[in-house]
Amino acid sequence: MHTNCIEEVQLALHRVFMTQDSHEATLHRELIGRLQDLLGDRVSTALSIREQHGRGESWHPLQMPDAVCFANTNEEVSQIVKMCAETRTPVIAFGTGTSLEGQVQAKYGGICIDLSQMDAVLEVNSDDLDCRVQAGVTRRQLNQYLRDTGLFFPVDPGANTSIGGMAATRASGTNAVKYGTMRENVIGLTVVTASGEIIKTGTRARKSSAGYDLTKLFVGSEGTLGVITEIQLRLFGLCEAISAAIVNFPDVRSAAEATMLTIQMGIPVARIEVIDTAYVRAVNQYSKTDYPELDTLFLEFHGTHAGVAEQVKLFHEISSEFGASGFQWAEKEEDRSRLWRARHDAYYAGLAVMPGSRGYVTDVCVPISRLAECITETQADIAEQGLFAPIVGHVGDGNFHSTVFFDPADKSAFAKILEFDKRLVKRALAMGGTCTGEHGIGMGKLKHMRDEHGDAAVEVMRTIKKALDPHNIMNPGKVVEC
Amino acid sequence: MHTNCIEEVQLALHRVFMTQDSHEATLHRELIGRLQDLLGDRVSTALSIREQHGRGESWHPLQMPDAVCFANTNEEVSQIVKMCAETRTPVIAFGTGTSLEGQVQAKYGGICIDLSQMDAVLEVNSDDLDCRVQAGVTRRQLNQYLRDTGLFFPVDPGANTSIGGMAATRASGTNAVKYGTMRENVIGLTVVTASGEIIKTGTRARKSSAGYDLTKLFVGSEGTLGVITEIQLRLFGLCEAISAAIVNFPDVRSAAEATMLTIQMGIPVARIEVIDTAYVRAVNQYSKTDYPELDTLFLEFHGTHAGVAEQVKLFHEISSEFGASGFQWAEKEEDRSRLWRARHDAYYAGLAVMPGSRGYVTDVCVPISRLAECITETQADIAEQGLFAPIVGHVGDGNFHSTVFFDPADKSAFAKILEFDKRLVKRALAMGGTCTGEHGIGMGKLKHMRDEHGDAAVEVMRTIKKALDPHNIMNPGKVVEC
Repeated sequence: MHTNCIEEVQLALHRVFMTQDSHEATLHRELIGRLQDLLGDRVSTALSIREQHGRGESWHPLQMPDAVCFANTNEEVSQIVKMCAETRTPVIAFGTGTSLEGQVQAKYGGICIDLSQMDAVLEVNSDDLDCRVQAGVTRRQLNQYLRDTGLFFPVDPGANTSIGGMAATRASGTNAVKYGTMRENVIGLTVVTASGEIIKTGTRARKSSAGYDLTKLFVGSEGTLGVITEIQLRLFGLCEAISAAIVNFPDVRSAAEATMLTIQMGIPVARIEVIDTAYVRAVNQYSKTDYPELDTLFLEFHGTHAGVAEQVKLFHEISSEFGASGFQWAEKEEDRSRLWRARHDAYYAGLAVMPGSRGYVTDVCVPISRLAECITETQADIAEQGLFAPIVGHVGDGNFHSTVFFDPADKSAFAKILEFDKRLVKRALAMGGTCTGEHGIGMGKLKHMRDEHGDAAVEVMRTIKKALDPHNIMNPGKVVEC
Repeated sequence: MHTNCIEEVQLALHRVFMTQDSHEATLHRELIGRLQDLLGDRVSTALSIREQHGRGESWHPLQMPDAVCFANTNEEVSQIVKMCAETRTPVIAFGTGTSLEGQVQAKYGGICIDLSQMDAVLEVNSDDLDCRVQAGVTRRQLNQYLRDTGLFFPVDPGANTSIGGMAATRASGTNAVKYGTMRENVIGLTVVTASGEIIKTGTRARKSSAGYDLTKLFVGSEGTLGVITEIQLRLFGLCEAISAAIVNFPDVRSAAEATMLTIQMGIPVARIEVIDTAYVRAVNQYSKTDYPELDTLFLEFHGTHAGVAEQVKLFHEISSEFGASGFQWAEKEEDRSRLWRARHDAYYAGLAVMPGSRGYVTDVCVPISRLAECITETQADIAEQGLFAPIVGHVGDGNFHSTVFFDPADKSAFAKILEFDKRLVKRALAMGGTCTGEHGIGMGKLKHMRDEHGDAAVEVMRTIKKALDPHNIMNPGKVVEC
C-alpha cells in the first residue's frame, strides 16, 4: 500500500505538470499533435467527448481522459500505444462504456482508445463453430449478423456491450450455466501490448498445450496488460427446441434451493435466473410487463424436442417440492425475447424507480451449496439497514447481484453502502466464493483483492503486470496496485 | 537464440563445476545435506532412483537429476524450492513420469521433487460437484475414490497419470469433446512459486472476474513457473445411460468426415476416437481383443435413456452416409471398460509390435473442418516415407496422434522422423492448428513455438517466465527459451 501511495502522488504531480507550461506540457501537446497526424479528426479533446469516455454505468465518479482516439485498425492501436509508451502516457481502452467498476475512468488522465469503430465481423467459420470479430462489435450486432447461419453467440451481460469489453472483463450473463463465460468462449485474441507490439494468442484448434495460456491471461485483465483488438469466439448451433419459463416461489431461498437441486441433478438448464419481488415490481413498471410481483425464477431449456420436454418435466417436479407456483411457459421466439429483454433491463428499471439515483452493484459468486444461505443473510442485512437493494442473480452459477440504488449527493448513505458491501464480500469469501463473478475489479473492488487471493498471489499478479507493462501505462490504477 | 546459446553454455559450465571440488561442489554437497536434514531418507541420490526420474515415456534420452526428494506436504515443497532458489539449483516436479516431450528430464541436473506420496483426496464436495486433491493422486485413483458418490472426473490421458502432471501439461484425453480438458476442469490450484511462496489460485466459485487468471496461467506451464501441489477440480454426475460403440469405416478420411458432421450437428457425443487399421491390429495382439482390423471409430454417448437413444440414432444415420459398417454396441460397464482400456493401451500395443522400439508421438490439433484433409495428407506422407506410424485420434477435438515407432539405435531413421514431424506441424499450423493438442511443449516441441505463436507472443511468454522465475530454476530448458 505504501508503494501504491507514493506512486499515486507521483502520478498526481505528473498530471498537474501536464497542464502547466512545462516540459511535460510540451510533451503532452506534441503527443496530441502526433496522434492528430496519425488519425486526423479521429482524435478529440472536446469536453463532451472526454466526459462521455470518462465513466461507466455505475456510481464511480467521472475521470476524464485528456483525449479520445477513435481507432480503425490494429496498426493504428499499435501506433497510438507506441506514442503513449514513449511519453509514459496512460492508455485506456474503451468499448461501449458499460463497465460497472470504474474500468474506463481515466484515473491518471491519458489517452482513451475508443474501439467502437472497429466493428467488423472478420470471419465466420460455420463448419468449426467459431468466428473472429473486431473488439468494437457488440453482442447484439454479432447475433444479428449470425441470424441466418443457424449459429449464435451465447454470452450476454445485461448491456449491449462490445465483445472486446466483455473479453477484457471476463464477462458472463444469463447463459453461462450451460455455455460458459468469456473465459470458456474466447479461443484466441489479437492484443496490442504495452510496447505497441501486435500479438496473436491461441489458434483455431479447439485445444492446445503449446505454452502459456496467453488468451486466458488477457481475458479478464481489463486493459491493464494490453489492448484487445480482435477476438476469436466459439459459436453454438441454435437448438431444435427452446422453452422459456417463469415460476414464482414463496421466497428467494426456496428459488435458490430449487436451483441447487436442478444443477446437482445435472439437468442441462441453459438459463436460470432469480429476480426478487422488488425487482419484478420495478421491471413491470419500466418494461410495461405484468409478471406476478413475487420472487421469481426465469428459466430457459435448450435441446431437442424430447430433451427439452424431459428437462421441463424434471424441473417441474423439483420446483414443486419448494413451493413453486404460477408456471408460465414461452416457446415462441418473440415471447422469449420479451421475457429476457425484461430481465436484462432490470438494472435500468431499478434506476427508474429512484430518478437521479446511481446503482452500487454488488457481484459476489459462491459455491452453489452456499447460495441460499448467502442470499438469505444478505436479505436480512438489507432489511436491517433499510436499503433499496433488489436482488437479481445468475443463480445457476452461484452468482447474484444486490444493487443498492442511492442518491449520489447523500454521503452518509454511501458510507453505509460501503459497509454493507464489505460485509457481503466477507460473507461470500468465507463461503469459498469470490468478490466478483462477472463485473471485474476495476477500481471499485481493488480493496478486496488481498482478502480474496492472499498477499502472495496478489504479488504474483503485480509481478506479471510490472513485467508486461513496466511503465504502468496500461489502464493504471485498475485490477492491481502498482 | 543467441542469448539462449550463451545461457546453455553457462549452465553447462555450471554443471561441470558442480561435480568438481570447487565452491559450487561444496554448495551442492551442502544443499543435499540440508535437504536430508529436512526430509531424512526421503532424499535419494541412488543411481537407480535418479535414472527412473530422468525420463518420461517417449524417445527423449535420459537426463538425470542430482537428487530426488519425495515431498509429503506443501510446506516441504516450499522449503525445497527455497533451498534451491538460494543456490540457483534447477527444480523439476515429477508425478508419474509419463510425459512425452521431455518435461521431466533434468536438462541441467538439479533437484527432482517427486510428488507421488502427496496422494490424498483432500475433499469432495458432492453438492458443488468439485473436489480438491494433492498433486500425486492419479486419475484412476480419484475415480476409484469417487465410485460410491455417483460422481466422476472425466479427463483421461492414456496413462494413469497424476492429476498434478495433467494440470501442468494441460492434458486432455478421450472425454474432452463433451467435458473439456484440464484447462476447463481445473478451477483452482495451490502452487509453490520460484521463490518458495505457497499461493492459492482461484476459489470454489464456478466463475470469477477477480484479477488475472493465475489458475489458467499455471495450467499448462509444465513446472516452469512453479510447482503445482494441490488441484481443485470439477466433477460430473454419472449419467443415467451410457452407450459405447465401435464402428468400422472404409478409410480414416470417412471416419473423420463422419465425426465432423456429428460435431457440427451439435450431437453431444462424449467420446469419439479414430483408430487406424495398423493400430487396431496392434491392440488386438496386445490386449487379446478381436476387433475387426479396419479403420475404426470408438464412441461413447452419455445422457438420459431417451437422450442417448436419440444421439445413437442420429449418429447411425450420419455414419451410414460415410460407408460405416459393423456397428457393435456395449452398454454394460465391464464391456465399456474393456473397450476403453484397449483404446488407452494403444501406445503400449504399438511399442510391443517392435520390441525395443521407442515411440515418437506427434500431437497436432486442427480445426475440425480441416481434420480429414490433415489426416489424409499425413497418411500419404507416412506411406511415402515407409514409416510404421499408426494413427489414433481424439477426432472430436480435431486432435490426432501419428506415433512413429523406431529403433533408437538407428540415427538415420530418427533424422527422417524429425523431417516428417516438421512437415506435419507445418501442415497443421497452415490449417490454423497447433503443434500440440495435449502433450505439451517440454523440450521436444520448443522448436515449433515461434512458428506457432510468432516472435512477439513468444517474447511475452519469456517476459512472464523471467519475471516469475528470475533465476531460471523452475524446470529450465522447457516451454520457453530463457
